[in-house]
Amino acid sequence: MRKFTGKIADRVGLPPGVLVYTGERVTEEARIDIIRYNGDSFEEKTAKSVDECLVLEKRTDVTWINVSGIHQVENLQNLGECFNIHPLILEDILSTDQRPKLEDLDDYLFILVKALDYDETSQGVILEQVCMGVGPNYVLSFQERETGLFRPIVERLKSGRGRLRRMGADYLAYALLDMVVDHYFVVLEQLGERIEILEEELIGRPSTPSVQMVHRLRREMILFRKSVWPLREVIGTLGRQESPLVRESTVIYLRDVHDHTVQIIDTIETFRDMLTSMLDLYLSSMSNRLNAVMKVLTIIATIFMPLTFIAGIYGMNFRYMPELEWVWGYPAVLLVMLLIALTMLASFKAKKWL
Amino acid sequence: MRKFTGKIADRVGLPPGVLVYTGERVTEEARIDIIRYNGDSFEEKTAKSVDECLVLEKRTDVTWINVSGIHQVENLQNLGECFNIHPLILEDILSTDQRPKLEDLDDYLFILVKALDYDETSQGVILEQVCMGVGPNYVLSFQERETGLFRPIVERLKSGRGRLRRMGADYLAYALLDMVVDHYFVVLEQLGERIEILEEELIGRPSTPSVQMVHRLRREMILFRKSVWPLREVIGTLGRQESPLVRESTVIYLRDVHDHTVQIIDTIETFRDMLTSMLDLYLSSMSNRLNAVMKVLTIIATIFMPLTFIAGIYGMNFRYMPELEWVWGYPAVLLVMLLIALTMLASFKAKKWL
Amino acid sequence: MRKFTGKIADRVGLPPGVLVYTGERVTEEARIDIIRYNGDSFEEKTAKSVDECLVLEKRTDVTWINVSGIHQVENLQNLGECFNIHPLILEDILSTDQRPKLEDLDDYLFILVKALDYDETSQGVILEQVCMGVGPNYVLSFQERETGLFRPIVERLKSGRGRLRRMGADYLAYALLDMVVDHYFVVLEQLGERIEILEEELIGRPSTPSVQMVHRLRREMILFRKSVWPLREVIGTLGRQESPLVRESTVIYLRDVHDHTVQIIDTIETFRDMLTSMLDLYLSSMSNRLNAVMKVLTIIATIFMPLTFIAGIYGMNFRYMPELEWVWGYPAVLLVMLLIALTMLASFKAKKWL
Amino acid sequence: MRKFTGKIADRVGLPPGVLVYTGERVTEEARIDIIRYNGDSFEEKTAKSVDECLVLEKRTDVTWINVSGIHQVENLQNLGECFNIHPLILEDILSTDQRPKLEDLDDYLFILVKALDYDETSQGVILEQVCMGVGPNYVLSFQERETGLFRPIVERLKSGRGRLRRMGADYLAYALLDMVVDHYFVVLEQLGERIEILEEELIGRPSTPSVQMVHRLRREMILFRKSVWPLREVIGTLGRQESPLVRESTVIYLRDVHDHTVQIIDTIETFRDMLTSMLDLYLSSMSNRLNAVMKVLTIIATIFMPLTFIAGIYGMNFRYMPELEWVWGYPAVLLVMLLIALTMLASFKAKKWL
Amino acid sequence: MRKFTGKIADRVGLPPGVLVYTGERVTEEARIDIIRYNGDSFEEKTAKSVDECLVLEKRTDVTWINVSGIHQVENLQNLGECFNIHPLILEDILSTDQRPKLEDLDDYLFILVKALDYDETSQGVILEQVCMGVGPNYVLSFQERETGLFRPIVERLKSGRGRLRRMGADYLAYALLDMVVDHYFVVLEQLGERIEILEEELIGRPSTPSVQMVHRLRREMILFRKSVWPLREVIGTLGRQESPLVRESTVIYLRDVHDHTVQIIDTIETFRDMLTSMLDLYLSSMSNRLNAVMKVLTIIATIFMPLTFIAGIYGMNFRYMPELEWVWGYPAVLLVMLLIALTMLASFKAKKWL
Repeated sequence: MRKFTGKIADRVGLPPGVLVYTGERVTEEARIDIIRYNGDSFEEKTAKSVDECLVLEKRTDVTWINVSGIHQVENLQNLGECFNIHPLILEDILSTDQRPKLEDLDDYLFILVKALDYDETSQGVILEQVCMGVGPNYVLSFQERETGLFRPIVERLKSGRGRLRRMGADYLAYALLDMVVDHYFVVLEQLGERIEILEEELIGRPSTPSVQMVHRLRREMILFRKSVWPLREVIGTLGRQESPLVRESTVIYLRDVHDHTVQIIDTIETFRDMLTSMLDLYLSSMSNRLNAVMKVLTIIATIFMPLTFIAGIYGMNFRYMPELEWVWGYPAVLLVMLLIALTMLASFKAKKWL
Repeated sequence: MRKFTGKIADRVGLPPGVLVYTGERVTEEARIDIIRYNGDSFEEKTAKSVDECLVLEKRTDVTWINVSGIHQVENLQNLGECFNIHPLILEDILSTDQRPKLEDLDDYLFILVKALDYDETSQGVILEQVCMGVGPNYVLSFQERETGLFRPIVERLKSGRGRLRRMGADYLAYALLDMVVDHYFVVLEQLGERIEILEEELIGRPSTPSVQMVHRLRREMILFRKSVWPLREVIGTLGRQESPLVRESTVIYLRDVHDHTVQIIDTIETFRDMLTSMLDLYLSSMSNRLNAVMKVLTIIATIFMPLTFIAGIYGMNFRYMPELEWVWGYPAVLLVMLLIALTMLASFKAKKWL
Repeated sequence: MRKFTGKIADRVGLPPGVLVYTGERVTEEARIDIIRYNGDSFEEKTAKSVDECLVLEKRTDVTWINVSGIHQVENLQNLGECFNIHPLILEDILSTDQRPKLEDLDDYLFILVKALDYDETSQGVILEQVCMGVGPNYVLSFQERETGLFRPIVERLKSGRGRLRRMGADYLAYALLDMVVDHYFVVLEQLGERIEILEEELIGRPSTPSVQMVHRLRREMILFRKSVWPLREVIGTLGRQESPLVRESTVIYLRDVHDHTVQIIDTIETFRDMLTSMLDLYLSSMSNRLNAVMKVLTIIATIFMPLTFIAGIYGMNFRYMPELEWVWGYPAVLLVMLLIALTMLASFKAKKWL
Repeated sequence: MRKFTGKIADRVGLPPGVLVYTGERVTEEARIDIIRYNGDSFEEKTAKSVDECLVLEKRTDVTWINVSGIHQVENLQNLGECFNIHPLILEDILSTDQRPKLEDLDDYLFILVKALDYDETSQGVILEQVCMGVGPNYVLSFQERETGLFRPIVERLKSGRGRLRRMGADYLAYALLDMVVDHYFVVLEQLGERIEILEEELIGRPSTPSVQMVHRLRREMILFRKSVWPLREVIGTLGRQESPLVRESTVIYLRDVHDHTVQIIDTIETFRDMLTSMLDLYLSSMSNRLNAVMKVLTIIATIFMPLTFIAGIYGMNFRYMPELEWVWGYPAVLLVMLLIALTMLASFKAKKWL
Repeated sequence: MRKFTGKIADRVGLPPGVLVYTGERVTEEARIDIIRYNGDSFEEKTAKSVDECLVLEKRTDVTWINVSGIHQVENLQNLGECFNIHPLILEDILSTDQRPKLEDLDDYLFILVKALDYDETSQGVILEQVCMGVGPNYVLSFQERETGLFRPIVERLKSGRGRLRRMGADYLAYALLDMVVDHYFVVLEQLGERIEILEEELIGRPSTPSVQMVHRLRREMILFRKSVWPLREVIGTLGRQESPLVRESTVIYLRDVHDHTVQIIDTIETFRDMLTSMLDLYLSSMSNRLNAVMKVLTIIATIFMPLTFIAGIYGMNFRYMPELEWVWGYPAVLLVMLLIALTMLASFKAKKWL
């Protein structure tokens, strides 16, 4: 449930801009990667604190500072001063339950997105907040914990292949966004597989656990949707190139990520529709089964109750019961019983219960 | 139910601008706090009536008059004359069942919002109407009862820390709004916790009281939504800075509250979806249980009815029943019964009922 | 059902502008009130026909002609000629099943709204169509029957208190609209009370009549919504002051009615959501009850069927049944039966059915 | 079902503009009515083929050619050449499963609408496609079969009463549209009556046929909605007078039809909501009844199973059963049975099952 | 399920523009058809690789290159270089799970649509991605596999009839789009027929397989909708003629396809509504049947349980049971039993259970 509300309540009453970390308490130390590159050179270093963060010189180099672990508030404060970041933005970075959003602050763009991961163990979706500050020649990125999410991009930069090294900070920001969005597909595929398995189960052998699984998947979908839905607008706005920080050459790439986001939202809606349809299917088959069960019971009862009653009659101990003395009494009663049973069966046949 | 309709009907037929208090009758006296501050000084006093309300001098001081308890209509009338407030606005303040709204009356802005609180005793949401008049250098705020809601802001003003003391009336209005919106998160967290507990209950041990609780939570959500939904537009309009009363420096803060409002609406919708999903889950498990119960009944009946019938046959008192005389009659019947029971069990196994 | 379709079908094929009354046949005679006032004077007279309707002189007086009962088509025709009203508008006045609408015909505004009333006897909402023609210094109002709806406004005019007497025809039109909208609150409060009572009933003691009441209330809500929904736009358009017939001073009052309309729509939606939620609650508790009932049945059957079968066995009349001769046979069987019963009860306990 | 898809699939792969009739095969011959009128004169003639169709002379006369039966493709082709109609438009006329639409082709307007009729025999809605070409001084109208739909308009033209004869082709087109829309009210009234009857049935005596009727009515509503929904936009666009072919004097009449269309859509939505509510009511009462039935069963079983068991015990043939020898054994057992029965009844009373 | 997510996850982390085929592995070789035509001449050739693809000379000829089978990435790369196609576009062609979209790249338009086919064997809808690049005098089309989809257009070109040969590349693109959309009607008709059959089944003889079929059809509809919905916008944008590549004469044809698309979406929504209504119908009849079954059971049990109990009483072996000795005891008991049975039946009659 934490996924849905978060701990914003903790900071109620504090003035705006006071930095309080509202995520889960992490004990590992934060890790800061500083990467500097241009078309020709590439330089990477890892720092434990932000003191090592170099003053930004006026060069064509692109600087990417990736902060993994935001619970050390002093790091953020230093970076904030160094890059002149508005206190409200720093507050947003620390509040890990924000909605995806884009803020254009003239000097830099602030982008907040949700990275998703599928956890095999708990079979659930894990949510991670990723923030980016995109300036003319720098990108700051903030993650809650150290994940390997952006490692492939570092590798691509290091290798120098592709256009990544030759393009500016806006293209790097695009690459990071693209990586986040691509991961949604991975999560979606996992969820899709589980839905598929569940559907087969529900058709073959409906059971309570499968309905609880439908419920859980619906919850995951609600969560997923909440994380991706506002992203569409964020990337859409970016792609409309209203900020001079986004170069025209990057726009077509942003439109591509935008298409992916729309496609993901489409698929989420599709999954939600399917889960609803599966639930309907489940309820229908439950109702159907109940009917089948009740028919069996009714048929049995309807046949044997009258027969048992007849047997009960001739089990009475009245002194004067002429039938009991008849030689053919017993076979006659058995015959009557058989006739009754057959009549009943025939009437069930007529009602199509058999 | 009072929450939904209110007593507006009481004033049907009265001409507009006639002041009638439509909230609950309160007996406590109203309390009026008058606060005056600028960057350097801070002054606070509490009055019982509005007569002590000072004439507003042309100074850079900001005056904040906080009225707790609006059932004393004469106070409102005096304030209204003093600050030149339109009678329809005064009427709105007194009608405690208004929708959140913003009116731009050139001289001042009128903002009406709903403060929410979670009542532990009744486990329900309590609604309080908060109105604000925001002029160039004054803020009037009106609450239905004396709550501690705005106390932290008074403290922040008194302490002189932060930018609150140095900013104008518009920033104070923002701070009040922010306080109201921040309290939504507290309420949301409480509701979220109850939903979480309920969900576990519904999965583990579905019962009528839990369904009634789902119903009550849905009602709370409907109420919550009704209170917050229009607020989004109110704050959105404020943030677009169409009034000269809102300074540019305050706009970014208003946008921040706006984001929070959107986030709250998102979460409310998420909760509503989850409650619906929980109800579906409940109905499915009920249906499933009924099936299970009926299967037990049907199995028992299907096995014992034929057997009891056979026993009944040999309990009949016909004189001529050859089987009764056989030495192996009794064990033979028992064997037949056993065979029938086993056949039945096998057929249930085949139907996967066991 | 009449409420939903009306008798428009009666006039199919007639050319437009042919006046046919499509409401219910009323036998009472129409009543025409002619009121003339300005800041200083007030004059009221009641006419049986429109012949007495005075020619409108160019004066600052406001003339209000209120027609109660529109089944006398000739009255309308005369008024139409006198005030130069378009035949299509007259047709609209006569078709009592129109949607609320606003037509700006340059010379005058035509406003059509639905007045609602709550009928205690039938416990249902009664619908009345109210039309208004608003010219520069006159207001024509048309009601289906003579109701006291506008009486309080006549009284306010007569008394000369408030600003009503001093303002123009547009303000009078506003006052009439406000009266209609205020009555919605009365109806809403009645419906709200019934919903509240119903909710308590459904939680305490669900029954078929309460579900039928939910259904009826939903119907009323559908009807209510249909009548109010388009009104929002009508009043919104009026308030945007696009017509020179609406003075600027009246606009703030129109915005106030607009807010009320929005609030009513909000409340209707809230009620609809609540009725849906109540139905879900009802279905859940029905399902729950069925489970409870079936458990009782199953427990009884599962305990007594095997026991009765055992009794049946020893009731068989086989000659050779050794157990029957044992001295301890009877108590032993009773003991076995007791053990079986206890085992069954224990297994139900384990299944949490008890 | 044909109503929903049609036979467009028949022409897959053909080049556009190839004329293939896709409606039902009709054997009657087409009928062509040619009407020519102006303020003073009126002339009507019926032709079997389009050869008789006169060349349009430049006169103030309005020519109305009404083609009933479009399966004779050559007629259409001739008319198409004569009036210079685009092949795609001719194709639209022949494809009888189009959506209502408006095409502005500069020289003429093409309007496609759906005429509805209620068929008493099948108790269903019949759909007829009506197309119109509206030029500066001619109207072409195409119907699938000869229906009396437009007869009243011919009569009105012939009689010369009203403004129809004095107005232009655009007014004639309006009159035709109005006739089509007025017929919707007739159908709606029939459906409304059936819904009303059904509702009473469902409240009084719910049965399977009534639910099937609800289903059928929902189907009709879906169909109805599909036919009317796009019409709103069609007429709305016409009324915005964007084409010089629509004179200003006709606009107010078009707005009137537009209002009717909106009213019809409103009513359809209302009916759909009511049918949904009726289904909910049905399901609730079914669920309620099942409860009632099961309670009866459970009460009977719970009372008689223990009693029968006791009777069974004393029906056993053990040699040593002391109770059987007691003088008061029989009445004592009867008393015990009575006590058990009363206890059971009391407990049911306590559970409010009785 | 593959239909819903695809294998985009495979390429997570790759830089944009790297070409990886994400569809199913196909072993057949790709086939490339190169067609060249103008008003007078027509030339067709089939190539196995793109090397034979001719350099585009500046002529009025239209060149259409149709690639069936996109798994041979090198073909695409060559074509891409030859026609100067952006790497992201090539990537889109290869990712077979894209949403329909239109990209205007100044030099050419990129159109991506989904072709649907109905597979009789699996009774399901098959999805095929079709991409088009439309330049000033060429059209490139890409299909996943070799299907006969575009064969009729080749034939029309070859025959030289109609306007296809005389028009430009934009008209050819229209013809291809039209072919794709026309095929939707075929699929829709098949689905419509299955829905019709299903509906009759559900009304006549509801069963679990039919509900599963409803579920499957709903899935197909979700899929269908997902494929067609974005197409509306694609074709709408094309028809607005914002690109100079689309000639004015083609616009009316594009509007025609647009109408078809809207009609298809309408029909899909109609089908979805009907499937929902069918499910409701099913659930209602299930509920109804359960009631009927339970009534039979209850009636049987209520009649025979008391009777069997009475028979059981007189089957007891008490020594002192005076009734047993009476001469009329047996007939009297039979009479009492008959009376009880009749009373029960009468009460069921009164409850309308019979």
